[in-house]
Amino acid sequence: METLVPLPVGFRAAGVACGLKSDPSKLDLALFAADRPSTAAGVFTANLVCGAPVKVSRSRLPRTTARAVIVNSGNANACTGTRGDDDARWMTAEVAQRLDCSPEDVLVCSTGVIGRFLPREKLAVGIPAVAGRLASSPESFRDAATAMMTTDTFPKLATRSRQVGTTEVRVSGVAKGAAMIAPNMATMLSVIMTDAALDQRQADSILRHAVERSFNSISVDGHMSTSDTVLLLASNARDAAQLGVGGPIAIQEMVDEVAAELAQAIIRDAEGADHFITLEVRGTRAREDAMRIARAVADSPLVKTAIAGGDPNWGRIVSAAGYAGVLFQEENLSLKVNGVLLYKSGMPTDFDAKSLSQGLRTNRDVLIELELSLGSHAVRFWTSDLTAEYIRLNADYTT
Amino acid sequence: METLVPLPVGFRAAGVACGLKSDPSKLDLALFAADRPSTAAGVFTANLVCGAPVKVSRSRLPRTTARAVIVNSGNANACTGTRGDDDARWMTAEVAQRLDCSPEDVLVCSTGVIGRFLPREKLAVGIPAVAGRLASSPESFRDAATAMMTTDTFPKLATRSRQVGTTEVRVSGVAKGAAMIAPNMATMLSVIMTDAALDQRQADSILRHAVERSFNSISVDGHMSTSDTVLLLASNARDAAQLGVGGPIAIQEMVDEVAAELAQAIIRDAEGADHFITLEVRGTRAREDAMRIARAVADSPLVKTAIAGGDPNWGRIVSAAGYAGVLFQEENLSLKVNGVLLYKSGMPTDFDAKSLSQGLRTNRDVLIELELSLGSHAVRFWTSDLTAEYIRLNADYTT
Repeated sequence: METLVPLPVGFRAAGVACGLKSDPSKLDLALFAADRPSTAAGVFTANLVCGAPVKVSRSRLPRTTARAVIVNSGNANACTGTRGDDDARWMTAEVAQRLDCSPEDVLVCSTGVIGRFLPREKLAVGIPAVAGRLASSPESFRDAATAMMTTDTFPKLATRSRQVGTTEVRVSGVAKGAAMIAPNMATMLSVIMTDAALDQRQADSILRHAVERSFNSISVDGHMSTSDTVLLLASNARDAAQLGVGGPIAIQEMVDEVAAELAQAIIRDAEGADHFITLEVRGTRAREDAMRIARAVADSPLVKTAIAGGDPNWGRIVSAAGYAGVLFQEENLSLKVNGVLLYKSGMPTDFDAKSLSQGLRTNRDVLIELELSLGSHAVRFWTSDLTAEYIRLNADYTT
Repeated sequence: METLVPLPVGFRAAGVACGLKSDPSKLDLALFAADRPSTAAGVFTANLVCGAPVKVSRSRLPRTTARAVIVNSGNANACTGTRGDDDARWMTAEVAQRLDCSPEDVLVCSTGVIGRFLPREKLAVGIPAVAGRLASSPESFRDAATAMMTTDTFPKLATRSRQVGTTEVRVSGVAKGAAMIAPNMATMLSVIMTDAALDQRQADSILRHAVERSFNSISVDGHMSTSDTVLLLASNARDAAQLGVGGPIAIQEMVDEVAAELAQAIIRDAEGADHFITLEVRGTRAREDAMRIARAVADSPLVKTAIAGGDPNWGRIVSAAGYAGVLFQEENLSLKVNGVLLYKSGMPTDFDAKSLSQGLRTNRDVLIELELSLGSHAVRFWTSDLTAEYIRLNADYTT
């Protein structure tokens, strides 16, 4: 994955180490700043147990005057009660003081250990430091992406640039996440920025559309974090007149692409995973039905271990579809794995299991296609397999 | 677990090997027979993709004239289309011919590989053989329980006997299941028998109550099988006049106890598991809310790996409760693990993590208590941890 990508016009970024992680040399504090008031929208975890930063940022969005996003790793500031809420607000106030703006114009994300209070004394040094290093260079952007990482093995950045109307528009984003898998760690976070002009309603609708088809269409272990957050900031450097009537659609496409690339990078970085699985579910009466089936298949440990073992065990896939809560008959269902038809309209087929198994063992990418004959809706969903390495990473840890 | 337990009056059982399993010496065909027409009720998988035996047995229940249950392992007869339906009905007809009853009075269960047709030629030899061996001895009962096993490491039997009214009543049951975990294998099956008189409505209601608190309150991997079946047969050897007015309640208690013991045996036999986890969720507004929370916690791979690693990682438990779909505030929630309070009314406590971790590493049994302060409903739920051995068992297999 390319790590040196440009920021959109009107944004600066930085990442520093302030000692929140056990290895003090590791970057752990990221700042994204808009030079002028920006339009901002957010999508957050649906978990009722959510981190203080989620509560604080959610209460401030959508807005048209956002100036910054401060992100720390090493501590999730979740399950920390009212003291945690105070700490999250304090972080935004510290940033606001450096950027000469209102604290309400600063958003905050935290990821890391749950249930420990934030060490203010470290952040009191880190926040001025990260604000002092803000720059528009790809290197600063990469540092910010790196400072968000917890168990990620690489920083995740994506960018698109396209001619829209009479101007060039850029969308760039960062994400962190390798599933809520590591010791007390959690969370996927993403910040996506564009220089295009968007009003509050547009930013919100574009972000929701993109998230539904990216971060909400991936699963590693089915465990919803307390801190998941995706933010979209529009600096409005390219104004609506320049963008023309096709502007919103073009920007939607770019945000969709950047979000999908970042979401897929999270699955590619899923800890312990040997396979990158793409699930296509088609032919349902509603999009939500296809999502339910995709999610049931993706979250089944039996499907995930079968893929890990290179076993084209279609009974596990078909039976997971059967308990997804979507009404269908077995005769409505067909299944392909890597293009090979294994189950056709409710009946097993005669396929070459050896050759299919061989393909699963030698290729990292797996395509599972479930076809129903009920309607015209479809989804694409990404997940990883389940390996002994996942267990090792998640079990061999002591609080 | 005791394997030599008596059958209730009026029942006989047998188990034989007829070559359905790859090891031809292993018992794979079980028959339970009632000497006279019996009351029977059943509870079946909610999976829309269900085995042919589920369809056939479900269509015949509840009834008052049941005479037998034929159970084979080694082949699930699921995802086998109309030919599978014919095969399942044929099995009951073969049994009916031996017992001189109507095929509709015979119930059928199959467990094993999904998607392969039943080998009629083997069953055509096996069914007369198993019918010829029917006996009321504990040894025959144990053989029948053994013939139902797939990846189980021990046969699962439980019995209760109690004075009810003026007579002695017995409830005895068998179960198979070690989670839907092994290669193409699946399923939990259970047959529970009593010599007490029950009418159709009583049998149905007693069975549903017991299943809700036993087989529906366990989870190994959250993967619902295509063939899950629990049957209750009442031989009516002890008549209603003997049982008195307290009869139904006493029988409900015994069936509850036998079902719970069998369900817990499945969890104790969960493949690869190092810990037997009891989850108690209390203080919800409805029983269903407590079940949802228990199920979300039990099915989280992060919770299961934490327990496997001896890590009292309460953030994972609390966050799983948060996404269960039950409305509560963090302040409503408290958590104990093995009696130690880790999270109190939404705030972390100061606990001795080393000693708790030590206890988790040395004891097989774990008690997780989640207390909400919203109502008076509660459930008890059993699950296993998730170990590298589970992955090995489920991945290192080739179709």
